[in-house]
Amino acid sequence: MNYCSNCGNRVVLKVPEGDFLPRHVCPNCGTVHYLNPKIVVGSVPEYQGRILICRRGIEPRHGFWTIPAGFMENDETLQAGAAREAKEEARIQVEIGSLLLLANVTHARQVHVFFRSRMLTPDFGVTHESLEVKLVTADEIPWDELAFPSTEFALRRYVEDRAAGQERHHVAEMHRRFG
Amino acid sequence: MNYCSNCGNRVVLKVPEGDFLPRHVCPNCGTVHYLNPKIVVGSVPEYQGRILICRRGIEPRHGFWTIPAGFMENDETLQAGAAREAKEEARIQVEIGSLLLLANVTHARQVHVFFRSRMLTPDFGVTHESLEVKLVTADEIPWDELAFPSTEFALRRYVEDRAAGQERHHVAEMHRRFG
Repeated sequence: MNYCSNCGNRVVLKVPEGDFLPRHVCPNCGTVHYLNPKIVVGSVPEYQGRILICRRGIEPRHGFWTIPAGFMENDETLQAGAAREAKEEARIQVEIGSLLLLANVTHARQVHVFFRSRMLTPDFGVTHESLEVKLVTADEIPWDELAFPSTEFALRRYVEDRAAGQERHHVAEMHRRFG
Repeated sequence: MNYCSNCGNRVVLKVPEGDFLPRHVCPNCGTVHYLNPKIVVGSVPEYQGRILICRRGIEPRHGFWTIPAGFMENDETLQAGAAREAKEEARIQVEIGSLLLLANVTHARQVHVFFRSRMLTPDFGVTHESLEVKLVTADEIPWDELAFPSTEFALRRYVEDRAAGQERHHVAEMHRRFG
């Protein structure tokens, strides 16, 4: 951040009075610009026992498999955001269910919030964000070709919990991928 | 948002290619400025059966009672943020426990994430953010003088769950206060 988004003046880095961290502050209009983590919302969609996954058509991790998820927008709930992403990435209509994963992705300055979801119809399709979309059994999940640590974590817990007949929620930390 | 925080040019509102919502876009450097909901992290701290609450010394809701909570910062986990807020608002050291509440506060463009927490020592004190800090029994909670809907929701579920011997998590929507 170089300029004040309110008045266009150059900002300076300083600790505002009563604060404890340096912030981008505008010496002209006084605005303090805070930078906060972003929320990624998504779901593991299921239809008659099979799980829907998408092959990413955009960066990062182009070509790798993921569940429908993306940045939460203003003026929507977590569940509405997760349903919107399912529609945008896989052209599916879902009913959002229980909380599956609340994940700290600190290195990316993100928090991921994933739910279970139920596809209301068997229809799905590719979009400009997805190269390929398919319904798979638990055994068919391409574990070595998943896009993000939180994708793998969510799918593993989903499959385990389902096998145990439970809908548990998980709070976890995701670390940077290596290699 | 009026100016590009990257180059200082005036921004325009338009729907970027492949997007579906109008964004603040810089016609000079091409930066798209997204606005996303912010995360508020906090906890219900307990010490030997009593609950810690703080009377707010800052706006909004100056003078009303709350649990220690505030905006999550970059480069910290949800739990680290909740522990930091407990220290900043009540000078307490806590161990963060199970997830209590995940709340959509859509009208404020916030998501609240509250945990249970355990005070490691009985020490607490006021800060510039809190006029008063105290440990109360469930019967002593000032229900009519709580700061926010999520404060009341979290405390009610906390007390109920504890009475039932459970540590459940709740996913809920908070609506604007009236009056």
